[in-house]
Amino acid sequence: MSSREKAVVLLSGGLDSATVLAIASQDFDCHAISFHYRQRHISELKAAAQLARSFNAQHQSITLDDGVMSGSALTDSRIAVPETGLEAGIPVTYVPARNTVFLAHALAVAEVQVSSDIFIGVNAVDYSGYPDCRPEYIAAFERMANLATKAGVEGQDLHVHAPLIQMSKSEIIATGIQLGVDYAMTVSCYQADDQGRACGLCDSCRLRRAGFEAAGVADPTRYQAR
Amino acid sequence: MSSREKAVVLLSGGLDSATVLAIASQDFDCHAISFHYRQRHISELKAAAQLARSFNAQHQSITLDDGVMSGSALTDSRIAVPETGLEAGIPVTYVPARNTVFLAHALAVAEVQVSSDIFIGVNAVDYSGYPDCRPEYIAAFERMANLATKAGVEGQDLHVHAPLIQMSKSEIIATGIQLGVDYAMTVSCYQADDQGRACGLCDSCRLRRAGFEAAGVADPTRYQAR
Repeated sequence: MSSREKAVVLLSGGLDSATVLAIASQDFDCHAISFHYRQRHISELKAAAQLARSFNAQHQSITLDDGVMSGSALTDSRIAVPETGLEAGIPVTYVPARNTVFLAHALAVAEVQVSSDIFIGVNAVDYSGYPDCRPEYIAAFERMANLATKAGVEGQDLHVHAPLIQMSKSEIIATGIQLGVDYAMTVSCYQADDQGRACGLCDSCRLRRAGFEAAGVADPTRYQAR
Repeated sequence: MSSREKAVVLLSGGLDSATVLAIASQDFDCHAISFHYRQRHISELKAAAQLARSFNAQHQSITLDDGVMSGSALTDSRIAVPETGLEAGIPVTYVPARNTVFLAHALAVAEVQVSSDIFIGVNAVDYSGYPDCRPEYIAAFERMANLATKAGVEGQDLHVHAPLIQMSKSEIIATGIQLGVDYAMTVSCYQADDQGRACGLCDSCRLRRAGFEAAGVADPTRYQAR
């Protein structure tokens, strides 16, 4: 048995959460959780499992009910994923309350696993304008979580770590490479095909590609022939 | 079409949430949601559906993944439900992060339904010592929710209503009777049988029975022959 504390890590299988898993693994035994929520880019779940193995983390896949998280381009095939670049405001790829539902599950898992540390790969710099990626949101969730749980009441502080929140995409990539992340395993594209190949056009692909360029790192992403 | 605003109501099928549905129905068109989370007292879900119909509310049943919310006497048949009365501290019937997971789903549903009002039947008086039933928890969730969502960012305040939070069980019952709740439909027991008959011994049964006595109302609960 390891003497290290346990952490619960939200792992989508994308570039950001893979980096967070690498960061968390330095200090914690990690229990990674991924969600099946009818996302278009279901191949990210295979990537998540592979990434968890590569960092010797436990991996739990959680299925959300079909009726939740509808009304987004990421979960409704009738709404097109924008391919013309980032626009102002909250985009159609925003999924209602997604990080709150994810973090609520992480909190339940953390309590069962007797862990006081939750890691999430939100980022407030090179991001898509989602409200639930901002530092004030993470701080408010942490405060609520400490009032919600038995551990919190018993004085065992729960921490929500968002180590990437103030990093640029290129800083994230540089950090991950130093910690041994194989970004070829990761899937960031909002409409990746079932082989995990990226469209190269959605906001997530654009941010990722620019990040590799800025970091001076060869882009290992496999792109679809289009 | 009704011109009333829509509210999302957490409806377990028990006495408290039935009363909340009655209260919310006075001012809102209600969209009730119930959760299937491997709870022992699954008959409460039938009660919830029946209650929703009786108040002309829409009803959505949401299934949570089996791997979440374990480790409680309410979800693990290997942990016995206490039958000897309330004790100090947080009891074994506490379900990790339950209200946070429920409210997170309610928030996602509210955003899809274009509703800014969520109702929950938590109660801080005649309650079982759960941390996620306290006023400070509800306030912290509401604050987080307003930072989490598109609606919140766009200035549409989200409210988490907990109308029972300072009421005694007998006040809750008196309120519900005035609003036409048929408490014979409700299931509160932590280990109700599949016909919805109550054990009469668990904390929830004890609080409920004492509430009817204090309200001077005949107890309509159907009890198991034991």
